Amino acid sequence: MDSTDAIKQLGGGSLLIAWQLKNKKVLIVGGGEVASQRIESILTADAIITVLSPEKGLHPRTRRFIELRADRITYHDRPFQGPEELDDKDMVLTALDDNDLSQRIVEMSRERRIPVNAADIPDLCDFYFGAQIRDGPLQIMISTNGNGPRMAALIKGRLQKGLSGLEGEAITKIGQLRNKLKERAPGVGGQLGKQRMKWMTALCNSWDMEDFTVLDDVMMEKMLDEGWNKDQHVPTVQEMGVSRLEKRSSHSTPTIPYLTIATAFLAGAAFSATLLSYWRRS
Amino acid sequence: MDSTDAIKQLGGGSLLIAWQLKNKKVLIVGGGEVASQRIESILTADAIITVLSPEKGLHPRTRRFIELRADRITYHDRPFQGPEELDDKDMVLTALDDNDLSQRIVEMSRERRIPVNAADIPDLCDFYFGAQIRDGPLQIMISTNGNGPRMAALIKGRLQKGLSGLEGEAITKIGQLRNKLKERAPGVGGQLGKQRMKWMTALCNSWDMEDFTVLDDVMMEKMLDEGWNKDQHVPTVQEMGVSRLEKRSSHSTPTIPYLTIATAFLAGAAFSATLLSYWRRS
Repeated sequence: MDSTDAIKQLGGGSLLIAWQLKNKKVLIVGGGEVASQRIESILTADAIITVLSPEKGLHPRTRRFIELRADRITYHDRPFQGPEELDDKDMVLTALDDNDLSQRIVEMSRERRIPVNAADIPDLCDFYFGAQIRDGPLQIMISTNGNGPRMAALIKGRLQKGLSGLEGEAITKIGQLRNKLKERAPGVGGQLGKQRMKWMTALCNSWDMEDFTVLDDVMMEKMLDEGWNKDQHVPTVQEMGVSRLEKRSSHSTPTIPYLTIATAFLAGAAFSATLLSYWRRS
Repeated sequence: MDSTDAIKQLGGGSLLIAWQLKNKKVLIVGGGEVASQRIESILTADAIITVLSPEKGLHPRTRRFIELRADRITYHDRPFQGPEELDDKDMVLTALDDNDLSQRIVEMSRERRIPVNAADIPDLCDFYFGAQIRDGPLQIMISTNGNGPRMAALIKGRLQKGLSGLEGEAITKIGQLRNKLKERAPGVGGQLGKQRMKWMTALCNSWDMEDFTVLDDVMMEKMLDEGWNKDQHVPTVQEMGVSRLEKRSSHSTPTIPYLTIATAFLAGAAFSATLLSYWRRS
């Protein structure tokens, strides 16, 4: 149970959420570097994007997104014209040098209850962006609540040190295994749903996350045949013949330290040998 | 520049954002354990909360939040009654066993364009919650895009390994220093704004994040007197007399490896000495 003080002091932060934008309509006003960052974030979330910006204001990266993602981006070579631009939009982002125009767009969006972000004007934002780490299905966001992108970037570096870089692939494989399990033991919720969850959880707890990355279709079927289908036995890594050597990288094997240790051992040996042979000669 | 393939493949994720709820009105329908988690997240973001739930459905934690945070939470001992409950609300969260009621509340919220989340019914959610790390002004969110809270918790553990636990305090101190700097060199943007940012960035790049945690008011003034005020000199940790021994913990000082290396050196020396003395004797 949380302490009374902790509960009384809760506050001062943001609500960090994963907004769902699949096939939603997002308006981006502006075409510069910040707009290009916004486009990247919004494409990641599978939205349908309209970009409004005079052609001369397009950053090369914005231009590339427009060229390569015509399936998702409609580009208009003109400035923002009026409230009708907001018709049917589910989200509005401005990335403009003109703060007055940004403010007017924010006001129009608020009247229509459309979530809006105005780059560099925190007071006008319904939400902020932050530094991000993405690895397949894994997304991590870092917010310093207004204490600047430099700090967020430093924190991002620290977090990445804790990751092996294989987490996204592991999560993908675990998702595939779960889908195969659901095909064998179908149905929503109930006793079977609980058993499925128990088996998957036991597996995730007993295997290293990286072990999952070497699984292929055949191995997954084998796990279900010799594991789930045999009294819901939780197969070990050894039983499945998952060789840790197959892994392209490992979170828990720090190779450099071993080299360093070997070098230190040899240095000690050499030092001692030199010293002793010097004594012997003298 | 990003590769063409990378741009073409962007998708399949969420938009991770820091939603601003300060003094916004949030309705939480339900009082169980999930509701208590929602209350904690929403209190963190300084919102004004209305909780609707029959008294018998309250989890002890929900009860505690209601008791201790009467400044922020209005509690009504009754079920959801109808669309008028949504009047003036800025966000709606349901945490109910009754999926049909959840669905009706989601539909009413959508009609009013109020962002809504229905616990355990992803298809009805405008946004998802995720695993979080909070340390003062630092907030980190982990989303596995529907691959389950177990995976998110494992990732959270890995990320925490990369953190010293002093980042929140460091960010707070850096914010205080920046505010003091702004008092000495006031104004928004322009040349002075650029110089302020350059000085703060150089400082953040040359100091360890943990070094900032030992700063107090007197030391901050000294940094501005002997740093910023002297041709915007960037003071070193040594100049400021920030002793690394004062730090309660340090991210960047891996003591165990050094011990290991020293041990390996000594082991090597001993090995070589034993071998040589053996040869000498024989």
